[in-house]
Amino acid sequence: MKRCTTVQEVRQSRKALGTVGFVPTMGFLHEGHLSLVKRAKAENDAVIVSIFVNPIQFGSSDDLTHYPRALERDLSLLKDAGVDVVFTPDVETLYPQGFVTKIDLEGIASQMEGASRPGHFSGVATVVTKLLNIVQPQHAYFGQKDAQQCAVVRRFVADLNIPTEIVVVPTGREADGLACSSRNVRLTPEERQKAPALYKALQKAQSLFKTGERSCRVLEKAMRDVLHQHGLTRIDYAVVVDPEQFTPIKEASEKALALLAVQIGDVRLIDNIALDQA
Amino acid sequence: MKRCTTVQEVRQSRKALGTVGFVPTMGFLHEGHLSLVKRAKAENDAVIVSIFVNPIQFGSSDDLTHYPRALERDLSLLKDAGVDVVFTPDVETLYPQGFVTKIDLEGIASQMEGASRPGHFSGVATVVTKLLNIVQPQHAYFGQKDAQQCAVVRRFVADLNIPTEIVVVPTGREADGLACSSRNVRLTPEERQKAPALYKALQKAQSLFKTGERSCRVLEKAMRDVLHQHGLTRIDYAVVVDPEQFTPIKEASEKALALLAVQIGDVRLIDNIALDQA
Repeated sequence: MKRCTTVQEVRQSRKALGTVGFVPTMGFLHEGHLSLVKRAKAENDAVIVSIFVNPIQFGSSDDLTHYPRALERDLSLLKDAGVDVVFTPDVETLYPQGFVTKIDLEGIASQMEGASRPGHFSGVATVVTKLLNIVQPQHAYFGQKDAQQCAVVRRFVADLNIPTEIVVVPTGREADGLACSSRNVRLTPEERQKAPALYKALQKAQSLFKTGERSCRVLEKAMRDVLHQHGLTRIDYAVVVDPEQFTPIKEASEKALALLAVQIGDVRLIDNIALDQA
Repeated sequence: MKRCTTVQEVRQSRKALGTVGFVPTMGFLHEGHLSLVKRAKAENDAVIVSIFVNPIQFGSSDDLTHYPRALERDLSLLKDAGVDVVFTPDVETLYPQGFVTKIDLEGIASQMEGASRPGHFSGVATVVTKLLNIVQPQHAYFGQKDAQQCAVVRRFVADLNIPTEIVVVPTGREADGLACSSRNVRLTPEERQKAPALYKALQKAQSLFKTGERSCRVLEKAMRDVLHQHGLTRIDYAVVVDPEQFTPIKEASEKALALLAVQIGDVRLIDNIALDQA
């Protein structure tokens, strides 16, 4: 596995590869990331992974300084997973002095995660565009856990005619259902015990949908009830949304997503489920 | 010469070509455009030209509806110039329903042309990014007449790591010095006679600079005097600026640009000169 830290090194390394699957990450890798790598390996001649904690997608009150890092462990995991190139730029490499450009999306970027974290999706769109232009992959892989991020990426990739196909991979989960996240390690043992309630709440909404319930007010109330029963009361949102616009809807359709964002101690967790998913 | 109207057609046509030089235009072609094509032909295996009057770079009070068009004549000129592919998308092709993405630049995009035409450079950056992603050229060619546009394009291409080299070509001029522009045809004969005063004013600033004048206040006053002498009084700006930031400066450096925007009748003309240019 070759490690690159500059744009020139990545471009040079990429030339020798055929079709490339790209997995952008912020490091502190877990099973979710590795499932993206596995899928990328299966569908391309080579796999490139980036590790970069992107400062411009964190707000001032966000957890940039507390975002966990474990570079040596990450590199070892990626090597074992058969990754060809890992790109680990520093902040100055991607945002040199004089950098002034940003990508914005109207509508979707200001809903839900965008409302809770102003500027977040602009930061995501900007860094992902840069990485796609640097790596020039045939496919790029994102996890369904960040459903709104997936929708944002699909949207600006289409809008800007970026020649990469975006592939969304199902959410990786721990044995008890908690969605894999680099933030999970920051939960205390007690908090960790409560955390699977997010998935339980989503499953509750899904089972109600499958037995015919279509009122989003009812589905949302059911999710809140499950969270409350498990002692989770700091609910940022618990909603049913349109899967492209991420605006709340009143009557659940086949394509609707149930979405949660819940604060547990110092950690903010998100998760989602497609209501008609098998 | 192959004419393409869809993104898929351009991508398909491009595959058969080697290195590509790309010239994005809004049509109504003049000698300035043809000098870009000539340069592109000299430096690449093939040349692709786009003709697209980009609505999102025009403001509500701008001249989108009056922007001149002459597609059949343009196609004939490009064929004679040896262009390989011309891309003539319609608005719906580049901005389909649901389009929500835009590219913004802090600082430079709000100066001068950006101040006079809010949103203009965001529209330029967005469409040029799309076209570069569709065409994937090795080089893209822009005219120095639109100096600030050139600086904006260089900036976001660098910031977003777009793998295309931007080439800036000297301003094409009529025999009397008027910078080539598609807008020139909208001048009445009387207005057309006054219009070369822009270049005269720029030359005056340059000659003062070359004889040692460094006060931008003095240089700017000299440009205004020349414009007034030729009956041009609706001066949007007549300034000396830093060539990267496009902010006005007090003391002219070797790299400074003199910039003009002047309204003549219904037409707004711009021009510029590098003060130390040979």
